[in-house]
Amino acid sequence: MGKSLTFQEAILRLNQFWADRGCLIWQPYNVQVGAGTMNPATVLRVLGPEPWNVAYVEPSVRPADGRYGENPNRWQQWYQYQVILKPDPGNPQEIYLDSLEALGINRRQHDIRFVEDNWESPALGAWGLGWEVWLDGQEITQFTYFQQAGGFALDPVAVEITYGLERVMLPLQDVRGFTEIEWLDGLTYGDVFLKSEIEHCIYNFEQADVGRLTQLYSLYEAEAENALERGLVIPAHDYVLKCSHTFNVLDARGAIGVTERARYFARMRELARAVAEAFVKQREEMGFPLLAREQRSRGAEEQGSKGAEPLRPCSLAALLLEIGTEELPAGDLDSAIAQLEERAPKLLAEARLEHGRIRVTGTPRRLVVYVEDLAPRQRDEERLVKGPPAKVAFDQEGRPTKAAQGFAKSQGVAVESLEVRDLDGGQYVVAIRVEKGRSAAEVLVTLLPDLIAGLRFPLSMRWNDTNVAFSRPIRWLVALLGDTTIPFEYAGVNSGRTSRGLRPLRSPEIVIQRAEDYFALMEANSIVVDVEKRRQMIRQQADKLAAEVGGQIPDDPALLDEVTNLVECPTALLGSFDPEYLKLPPEVLITVMKKHQRYFPVARQRGTESTRQQGQRRLVDSELIDLLPYFIAVCNGDDHHLDIVRHGNEEVLRARFADADFFYQADTKKTLEEFLPRLDTLTFQEQLGSVLDKTRRLEQSVPRLSAMLGLSEAETATAMRAAHLCKTDLATQMVVELTSLQGEMGREYALRSGEEPAVAQAIFEHYLPRFAGDELPETRPGIVVGLADRLDSLVGLFAVDLKPSGSADPYGLRRAALGIVQVLAGAGISFDLREGLREAAALLPVAADDKAQTETLAFIVQRLRVWLLDQAFRYDLVDAVLAERGHDPCLAYQTVQEFVPWVECDDWMNLLNAYGRCVRIVRGFETEFELRPGQFVEPSTRRLYQAYVSCREQLGPQSSIDQLFTAFKPMVEPINTFFDDVLVMAEDRSLRENRLALLQRIAALTRGIVDLTRVEGF
Amino acid sequence: MGKSLTFQEAILRLNQFWADRGCLIWQPYNVQVGAGTMNPATVLRVLGPEPWNVAYVEPSVRPADGRYGENPNRWQQWYQYQVILKPDPGNPQEIYLDSLEALGINRRQHDIRFVEDNWESPALGAWGLGWEVWLDGQEITQFTYFQQAGGFALDPVAVEITYGLERVMLPLQDVRGFTEIEWLDGLTYGDVFLKSEIEHCIYNFEQADVGRLTQLYSLYEAEAENALERGLVIPAHDYVLKCSHTFNVLDARGAIGVTERARYFARMRELARAVAEAFVKQREEMGFPLLAREQRSRGAEEQGSKGAEPLRPCSLAALLLEIGTEELPAGDLDSAIAQLEERAPKLLAEARLEHGRIRVTGTPRRLVVYVEDLAPRQRDEERLVKGPPAKVAFDQEGRPTKAAQGFAKSQGVAVESLEVRDLDGGQYVVAIRVEKGRSAAEVLVTLLPDLIAGLRFPLSMRWNDTNVAFSRPIRWLVALLGDTTIPFEYAGVNSGRTSRGLRPLRSPEIVIQRAEDYFALMEANSIVVDVEKRRQMIRQQADKLAAEVGGQIPDDPALLDEVTNLVECPTALLGSFDPEYLKLPPEVLITVMKKHQRYFPVARQRGTESTRQQGQRRLVDSELIDLLPYFIAVCNGDDHHLDIVRHGNEEVLRARFADADFFYQADTKKTLEEFLPRLDTLTFQEQLGSVLDKTRRLEQSVPRLSAMLGLSEAETATAMRAAHLCKTDLATQMVVELTSLQGEMGREYALRSGEEPAVAQAIFEHYLPRFAGDELPETRPGIVVGLADRLDSLVGLFAVDLKPSGSADPYGLRRAALGIVQVLAGAGISFDLREGLREAAALLPVAADDKAQTETLAFIVQRLRVWLLDQAFRYDLVDAVLAERGHDPCLAYQTVQEFVPWVECDDWMNLLNAYGRCVRIVRGFETEFELRPGQFVEPSTRRLYQAYVSCREQLGPQSSIDQLFTAFKPMVEPINTFFDDVLVMAEDRSLRENRLALLQRIAALTRGIVDLTRVEGF
Repeated sequence: MGKSLTFQEAILRLNQFWADRGCLIWQPYNVQVGAGTMNPATVLRVLGPEPWNVAYVEPSVRPADGRYGENPNRWQQWYQYQVILKPDPGNPQEIYLDSLEALGINRRQHDIRFVEDNWESPALGAWGLGWEVWLDGQEITQFTYFQQAGGFALDPVAVEITYGLERVMLPLQDVRGFTEIEWLDGLTYGDVFLKSEIEHCIYNFEQADVGRLTQLYSLYEAEAENALERGLVIPAHDYVLKCSHTFNVLDARGAIGVTERARYFARMRELARAVAEAFVKQREEMGFPLLAREQRSRGAEEQGSKGAEPLRPCSLAALLLEIGTEELPAGDLDSAIAQLEERAPKLLAEARLEHGRIRVTGTPRRLVVYVEDLAPRQRDEERLVKGPPAKVAFDQEGRPTKAAQGFAKSQGVAVESLEVRDLDGGQYVVAIRVEKGRSAAEVLVTLLPDLIAGLRFPLSMRWNDTNVAFSRPIRWLVALLGDTTIPFEYAGVNSGRTSRGLRPLRSPEIVIQRAEDYFALMEANSIVVDVEKRRQMIRQQADKLAAEVGGQIPDDPALLDEVTNLVECPTALLGSFDPEYLKLPPEVLITVMKKHQRYFPVARQRGTESTRQQGQRRLVDSELIDLLPYFIAVCNGDDHHLDIVRHGNEEVLRARFADADFFYQADTKKTLEEFLPRLDTLTFQEQLGSVLDKTRRLEQSVPRLSAMLGLSEAETATAMRAAHLCKTDLATQMVVELTSLQGEMGREYALRSGEEPAVAQAIFEHYLPRFAGDELPETRPGIVVGLADRLDSLVGLFAVDLKPSGSADPYGLRRAALGIVQVLAGAGISFDLREGLREAAALLPVAADDKAQTETLAFIVQRLRVWLLDQAFRYDLVDAVLAERGHDPCLAYQTVQEFVPWVECDDWMNLLNAYGRCVRIVRGFETEFELRPGQFVEPSTRRLYQAYVSCREQLGPQSSIDQLFTAFKPMVEPINTFFDDVLVMAEDRSLRENRLALLQRIAALTRGIVDLTRVEGF
Repeated sequence: MGKSLTFQEAILRLNQFWADRGCLIWQPYNVQVGAGTMNPATVLRVLGPEPWNVAYVEPSVRPADGRYGENPNRWQQWYQYQVILKPDPGNPQEIYLDSLEALGINRRQHDIRFVEDNWESPALGAWGLGWEVWLDGQEITQFTYFQQAGGFALDPVAVEITYGLERVMLPLQDVRGFTEIEWLDGLTYGDVFLKSEIEHCIYNFEQADVGRLTQLYSLYEAEAENALERGLVIPAHDYVLKCSHTFNVLDARGAIGVTERARYFARMRELARAVAEAFVKQREEMGFPLLAREQRSRGAEEQGSKGAEPLRPCSLAALLLEIGTEELPAGDLDSAIAQLEERAPKLLAEARLEHGRIRVTGTPRRLVVYVEDLAPRQRDEERLVKGPPAKVAFDQEGRPTKAAQGFAKSQGVAVESLEVRDLDGGQYVVAIRVEKGRSAAEVLVTLLPDLIAGLRFPLSMRWNDTNVAFSRPIRWLVALLGDTTIPFEYAGVNSGRTSRGLRPLRSPEIVIQRAEDYFALMEANSIVVDVEKRRQMIRQQADKLAAEVGGQIPDDPALLDEVTNLVECPTALLGSFDPEYLKLPPEVLITVMKKHQRYFPVARQRGTESTRQQGQRRLVDSELIDLLPYFIAVCNGDDHHLDIVRHGNEEVLRARFADADFFYQADTKKTLEEFLPRLDTLTFQEQLGSVLDKTRRLEQSVPRLSAMLGLSEAETATAMRAAHLCKTDLATQMVVELTSLQGEMGREYALRSGEEPAVAQAIFEHYLPRFAGDELPETRPGIVVGLADRLDSLVGLFAVDLKPSGSADPYGLRRAALGIVQVLAGAGISFDLREGLREAAALLPVAADDKAQTETLAFIVQRLRVWLLDQAFRYDLVDAVLAERGHDPCLAYQTVQEFVPWVECDDWMNLLNAYGRCVRIVRGFETEFELRPGQFVEPSTRRLYQAYVSCREQLGPQSSIDQLFTAFKPMVEPINTFFDDVLVMAEDRSLRENRLALLQRIAALTRGIVDLTRVEGF
């Protein structure tokens, strides 16, 4: 390696690189912006149909990110290098990788990865899909396909590449922080900028005058509107940028309260949209001048040209479909495989193509459908076409009439071949048409694109002028039946026989002669197509590396799944970090390794216990984790230059840990309680106030809930203190940065602040359970605070009409409701949700009427139902119980459990039928009749009444099922006798109504316990 | 020529060029600035001792310069390329020229010139000296040696190079305006920026909300102060920049009134200084970290090394001193030559070096002193050293005492050689020391640097760590005595024998073997060292070229002098312009050609009149000028590629004329009167109000002055209308742009607005005379308005204590006073300035007391005195007259004129003596004694009294000199008789005082006419 580039050389190199590729080299904007995206060269020029290719440096100012220059790679001002390619040139990732090589970053020597990362700026009305690009674990670039900006769908879509220049320089110069980057020979980035970085931090965090900045914001806004009145796009945009920067400073200064924040965002969004609209209008009025200027040739033809007639294999052959994509998100890869597994056989069946085993698999860059032994042709098919009635089709002599002849002709069959069949309750003439199966190749020409088009993703994107939507851009299509290509075009790509190899090898072309060669060829090219095989490789490699340092990998299937979906050729490496960092809470270290870096943490092996058992420990439970100062990263590619990659990853982790340490040190300078006032600046929901407002409500509701749940005085005091502090960690830097650590940091910081351990535990527990399979709270204060929190959220958000709809559940209400269910049922705590919701509703700043409470309850009961069904209870039993006891999950759960043995008894149906006879006959009557026991005359009636009285005396609304049925069972015989002996519906009204009154009472015996009418067999 | 660079390629090229030379490549600032200078990378980093070399692009925003994109090369936003070299690398001009070659601008093919241009920003407390760089007449760069910034003297000095990138591109791409510049292939500057340029103009000129911007300014200012309180330099600086930009928009919007403007400037200056101070303090506290970092080797040694012992020619030889400089301002070149002509012989004489003829001459890049036949050695000198008194030195026997021996020893002479001389009124021993002349070479080693160091310039600069001040940097020194170098060091440069050739030839080294070869060698290298020869060459070439198109060059010695001093090798070229522009007023065309471009205009030849006569016409008098669509430019260098140069100059002139045409069209859309309200935005002086306020005062004073000067009613009406309009042209775009056209445009626009021709003429005339030798006003309304204007300015500015001091006369008060003198005396209008000043003072918004009025009068009288002396009147006569009649220049002038013949009469001294006898005897008495004629007894006294009465009856304070002396002459004899006969100072008090009373009356006869005591011989 020669001498690496200086910072300024790198910029010059990038300018030259992108200029050589036809980009306009623009200059940084002369208004402070948070990102190069805000420069009009991006945010405006991506709008409309005109082509636009531009590259520029942009100093990006993000006041809240300031660390007084103390963090190695996080500053409030830093340099982006921004590229916009519009339209998509077809291979932007490869061009980008070439640009890295121009900087001296060889893709063969580094682990360069495209890791799913989507971008959204509600303030700009903009979003896009793409990746973070990782260089040996360091995020160095944001790569986004812009889908929308200023509220406009982009057509064409623009590719946005945003390099973090300093981040690129760190590994390139092998320095440990921004300050050390060599800007030019003998002068560092720190020499140039450190002092002003510190100054800006002091200004933004401590010195900026809030009143004046607030005025500035309003003046900017007014001038933006003023400029817009004259349709002055750029002057207006400049003021919008000034608004945005001013807001950011105010925010960093901690001066934005709840109401303000939401209003600020709404105001900025509105302005941004107006500017975008004015820009598009302006360009349109100008006739989109750049449109005429550039007519790019696009979509290089692959070898299989569209529309060519395929050869038709005449024997069984394998079918291969490989959809080559840019890096798919891990979740989308799973989902696509599942969908293909379901739809491929279905489509083949519909197409009458017989086949052998279907293998569906994939990597981040390819989805593979491989069908063994596909029939060369469709099965022939007989098709019956119904003609006129037989008596119309044939005359009395049995000769075909004109009607028959016409029908035969219209169907293209001989009139003699018509048959008469019984159809639809009559005799009709039918024509039998045998459809000859078409060749498989012919069928596949439409079937395969249909198969692709049928794939659906939670978020999909467009990228070229076909406006096809997919998870990420499709860049090649291999479609082979045996040795024959199935020619079709999809999303502007022509299918063929050329696949692509590994990125570190420059994605070389791989030409596939026969479908049957595919897997061997991929293996030869080091691509592990099979998901399960990759998973195994990773697991084994990681275990082996961990064992080398006396460690083991705690089991974490989700992480393993994700990592498996991030690579095509997994190679694990063992990295280490400074043991000094082990002083940080292990949750923090693990979160950083897992969430940020997708590293496997390494824990100490324990004695001779089996790895398996160890692995099943919960990662989140700090007391069980004994970390070693190692991690395992999984790279994409072989072990070429693995030392460079390891070193890079170690540096990244060091910086991340340094950041965490910075937060930890900063946070622990204050007590947890001191963070409380800051909660006022965190919005819970606009109408429901800040998180501080919510905390105040919890403080009020917790004592009442404690009383309802029978907590001791000491427990109540603990719960109240916990309620007071439970949200404070949200204002700590650590949780702002690593949200998933909420609760864990609360516990940690509470302990360090000298709170009672019980309080600390309750703070932690109130979030439990956080996800499916998570632990449940164990202390009653924790349960009460969690319950109060969830009830407040649920009824509050229902009251302001923010209940979840479809898949959208931004406030996590499904999880909250399920949490209530799990906690109450799991801890065996009986609790009437109706009362709890009423209490919570009363504390809200908005009206939460009965309807809202009822809806909320129904929503929770629905979660309870799912939870019960998940435990394999019969749905009818569940519904029967929930109808009466849904408001008390614990009780409902117990009830269902007790119910099961009863319905499994042999005489269950007798009991049910007896009860049923009573219920069915009184169903139609809304009136509750007066019971006059003295007037019962028949013995069977009197006997029944006696039985009823005896039963009723044993029961109440809180009775268990066992009590119910035990009490009820003696009534079966009297009921049946009664019905056999007596005509309930006597003509004498008084007599009739008295009998009905008795039956009504019997039917009501189950009330509050179970609704037996919902049980099967009723 | 290959394909020229695109705009973005040019930037890449410059970045690479300056990076290769060790510059830090910086980025444009993310706050709107008016110039790259405001970027902290310049305005702050030039402060303090640390080295700093930086280069960057800067979008420069100057709202008032906006032309809605209609002007080819003037936009409100454009790109600068800014370079700072600190300290001076020693050859920054050559590096700069190399950078042009890197862009494809070959210095051999173009006329590249360094034209004096000094820079000052009072708002930044900054100034520097340097040049505009012209490329074929187009200003493409500002090149400045920064002397001061933020109120701090810079040490080291920084070299600032500011390219106007678009201006560079115009000739490079051979396009006619910014919009056509190719930014990259197929995309122009106009495609990218035209629309936003127009939008910004609309916003700045029409739409910006004045109230809101005013608030913004105040908020920025407050935040700047807020940041400064914490010593936050960069945050404070950012706000200062925002203040500045906001001010500029307000200014473009026409919203800055008088009081505001001055206050804004004061506020910005104060802030800028505070920021600079904080920055320097900060760097000092940091220990000036960059200082240690870079230790540059500087001052490459020339061949003559310092301190080497010179060879000593032993016969007469020529002495050559060539001071090689960067381009000297034209005026400084003249001044330096004059100073050297005076000081060189003086210094040689003082040094006892005999010599032949001295030739002093020079070009913009060299000052030459050439001395013929310099003696090889100084003359020997006898020096007498005074010793002890003779009687102490010798004993009674005449033998030398110890005192004599000690003295002899101390003087290094034999005691026998002591002599006795009469000295200081006594006899002393003296030693006679013969100082042997040192060799000329030895003497010159200190004499030559002294000669250089003695040069003084109106503005001088420092550039390197010697802190020597000179007009422009000295880059080489040739010092030869015959073939021997005189070694010395001055301003960090070692003298030697190497000169430099022409810039277009890359300033090649020229080694001079013998001083005597110098002129031949220079000629061989195409350098015309002789000023007069260059002047002749230019005159002849220009005349010849003009004649080719039937034209002639109007005589303009000042222009010819200036052009002569701008080139080393003059080559004139004839260019043409679109005859369409001849429709513009010729003053405008001429001003543009002369002032902006230093072109000679070409006028039509008239019949057979001699060119000489034609040439003597005044250029300013439009009625006499009949321009042809040609101009003559004088290039520096030979006629290589003259076509390129011509084309470039034509393009520049076209753009300039287009600009003038734009102004003319814009101005003539309104009547002149409509500009009146805008005068309120032009400050006259803060305390004295706006130009509109001044106009209001003129409108009040003009009727009174008209009455005093006896104007007719019609004339008065004309004068009043002219007063109303006389300043309005200051608000027109043309005059804002070309200030020297004030008055001329006023006349032009007045006529076009339908004003009376007399009014238009008075508007024009009120400025006359504008400079020495300018025409005088011819109409009485013009005179009155001009008088009112000047009186207002003088008494007003004296009242607010802004009288000129030293060489500083920012309001041109000397010229104003002289103008009053010239007009009144020239037109023969008697006018009592005392009354005029009183009238003017009464109208001022400030108090102008008697003292102020008296001072003002004295100031005008002083100008009158100079004016009279310039006309070769005897100073004593002038003073005698001014003592009594200075308040009336016309009367004083007449009086002096009449005075002259009287003093030339033979009997003048008799008259003067007679009068003198009277005056001298009464001088000591302050009391005016009572005259009691009845008590005179002696006949001679009575006769004198009679003579006095007779004389007095003929005289009054308005009497002429002729009247005075004619009346006085008969008194001569009685006076003399009186003194002969009578003892004035009789012992009798009554008698004495009566005699004195008579003499007092006689002495007073001249009062109001002349003060004869000031006449020589009195």
